[in-house]
Amino acid sequence: MKINGKHYRTIWFDDTEEAVFHIIDQTKLPFEFCIQDVSTSDEAVRAIKNMTVRGAPLIGATAIFGLYLAVNESYSFKNPSGYLQKQAQKLIQARPTAVDLEKSVRLFLSRIGDIKNQDSLKHSARQFALQYAEQSVEQCLKIGQNGLPLIKNIFEKKKKEVNILTHCNAGWLATVDYGTALAPIYLAHQEGVPLHIWVDETRPRNQGSLLTAFELSHENIPHTIISDNTGGYLMQNGMVDMVIVGTDRTKLSGKVANKIGTYLKALAAYDNQIPFYVAAPSTSIDFENEDFIIEKRSAEEVRKIKGKYGNKIINVLISNESSPALNYAFDITPARYVTQLITERGCCLPEREEILKLFPEKSHGF
Amino acid sequence: MKINGKHYRTIWFDDTEEAVFHIIDQTKLPFEFCIQDVSTSDEAVRAIKNMTVRGAPLIGATAIFGLYLAVNESYSFKNPSGYLQKQAQKLIQARPTAVDLEKSVRLFLSRIGDIKNQDSLKHSARQFALQYAEQSVEQCLKIGQNGLPLIKNIFEKKKKEVNILTHCNAGWLATVDYGTALAPIYLAHQEGVPLHIWVDETRPRNQGSLLTAFELSHENIPHTIISDNTGGYLMQNGMVDMVIVGTDRTKLSGKVANKIGTYLKALAAYDNQIPFYVAAPSTSIDFENEDFIIEKRSAEEVRKIKGKYGNKIINVLISNESSPALNYAFDITPARYVTQLITERGCCLPEREEILKLFPEKSHGF
Repeated sequence: MKINGKHYRTIWFDDTEEAVFHIIDQTKLPFEFCIQDVSTSDEAVRAIKNMTVRGAPLIGATAIFGLYLAVNESYSFKNPSGYLQKQAQKLIQARPTAVDLEKSVRLFLSRIGDIKNQDSLKHSARQFALQYAEQSVEQCLKIGQNGLPLIKNIFEKKKKEVNILTHCNAGWLATVDYGTALAPIYLAHQEGVPLHIWVDETRPRNQGSLLTAFELSHENIPHTIISDNTGGYLMQNGMVDMVIVGTDRTKLSGKVANKIGTYLKALAAYDNQIPFYVAAPSTSIDFENEDFIIEKRSAEEVRKIKGKYGNKIINVLISNESSPALNYAFDITPARYVTQLITERGCCLPEREEILKLFPEKSHGF
Repeated sequence: MKINGKHYRTIWFDDTEEAVFHIIDQTKLPFEFCIQDVSTSDEAVRAIKNMTVRGAPLIGATAIFGLYLAVNESYSFKNPSGYLQKQAQKLIQARPTAVDLEKSVRLFLSRIGDIKNQDSLKHSARQFALQYAEQSVEQCLKIGQNGLPLIKNIFEKKKKEVNILTHCNAGWLATVDYGTALAPIYLAHQEGVPLHIWVDETRPRNQGSLLTAFELSHENIPHTIISDNTGGYLMQNGMVDMVIVGTDRTKLSGKVANKIGTYLKALAAYDNQIPFYVAAPSTSIDFENEDFIIEKRSAEEVRKIKGKYGNKIINVLISNESSPALNYAFDITPARYVTQLITERGCCLPEREEILKLFPEKSHGF
């Protein structure tokens, strides 16, 4: 995506061969655009934990870039391979819900972990990180291409702007580039399909009103921020043609873990016969397990909010001071409320057989 | 309700016979407890419009108190009755969704409007306001008594604390005293039923995390603030035993207008077979019409939020600066998702015949 005329990805190496990578500090967006250098694997863990980077595909990529740093660090330890394993565990545990994180780390270890030669390992780790990022971008582009006809079909019937509701941020900033839920939107906009996006603010961290709105503004796509309470009313009143969201972990059973509140929008879409799509790159599909770990984050994210006051970014108390709060970060949408998954290999019903038709290599027994 | 040991209603005359009444400035709660004097009917209009007072029953009462002031003002005009009519219209138009407002104003005009003698009119207007407030308190108490068995039944089956989810503020602060949705909760707590209340923060104005949490804190009722996105997940996980909300306008068809987001919680309750109750005093039931006007408020209420920073109450920007927002204040929950209405005359299904069995004098044709 372009920011002030310059193309950025959300994570990148610079031209040197140094053991450092760069990210955009998403906790400061849209108020400040700050690039942060990450030069140790512990910093990579912190960047994921603090949500300097967030979004299932991007934290998967950040873990890989972090492991490349861990490889470089490992040779100052007696047991380099033990150190790599330890850092890999720290990365996996940085956030529990997105499957991308554990999958990317395990993939790295299985592909790279056995290389004995130090230089060769360093080189391969860097190459693997670059390749992982490229594949992630390619997956997003394909999700865009596979989701595009869904938007175009509505436009062809309606002959008027297509109103799409999205929750949280599953855009450029949640991935290496393009986004998942926003990828079809970006492609439709490029093709001249008139669009209007309803942006759920997505409390408590407001990734919608801060990040999605920032992206759509930069792409000149008409959009309107709404409180998370509003989508149901809009759907009842014919103001939403479709919903597209991302996912942190989708099961073969079709259950979708995504940002807290997704389930409520899926219920409302179902109640009003509005299609509800989940943009799910295969990196976000859990082909192995059916259990979820739903992250519980600090209550202070609910009791307080970060905002801009004058030129400062500050935290203000928006609750009764003595009252406690609870902060689950994700919820689970049952498959029956999901119209289709949009994957890099095409769209499918949220059912084991249909998902495995697109990804036959993931079938157990093959 | 008691604040720092002193009992307060939300609206009252003082001991003098002066044309002034008092309210609590709810825009400053819970951070500051300020009593505001209202000495002109235009100030009463502003207090309703600015949400210095809010909640369907309380704005109904405020309109009556405001009309008492308008009566006092009217004799400095050539056409006192014309002035009263004009102020009555202003009050009705101050906020469009709650039926209490128009009903209370029309009731006042039909009961008081024809009195010709100036002193007698002033006296009657004040008496009417006092009586309206008393009746409103009595209605809330009875809603509490009628809702109490619903909570006790759950406790008797469960033998553990009853988890109740509520949206917005339908408590003491939304009424003259006791509340609607919170009245059964207060009575159950007084009777020693162990309770825990899930408080939806209720964006954009956070009446839940600010006002409901403030009330429950002062009554020492265990509660936890959650983002509006969270209730569905809690319901899926057996963490909610019942939902009780208020209403701004309930139709004979059983459709319920209430704070935006109520519909989403009703859908989730239905999906998880959790009873969903609407506490509806007859003043909030529209026995005449089936149409709704859904108030659209300033987009700035979504883009910004009021919070406490140090000792100051300030507004901070919590959205991408250049992005627009839309702010509907209410939504409509279809009757099929409402388990029962809790009225001052008992509980009933949200159906014309059942409602009219409780309020037979409202049947057309009688």
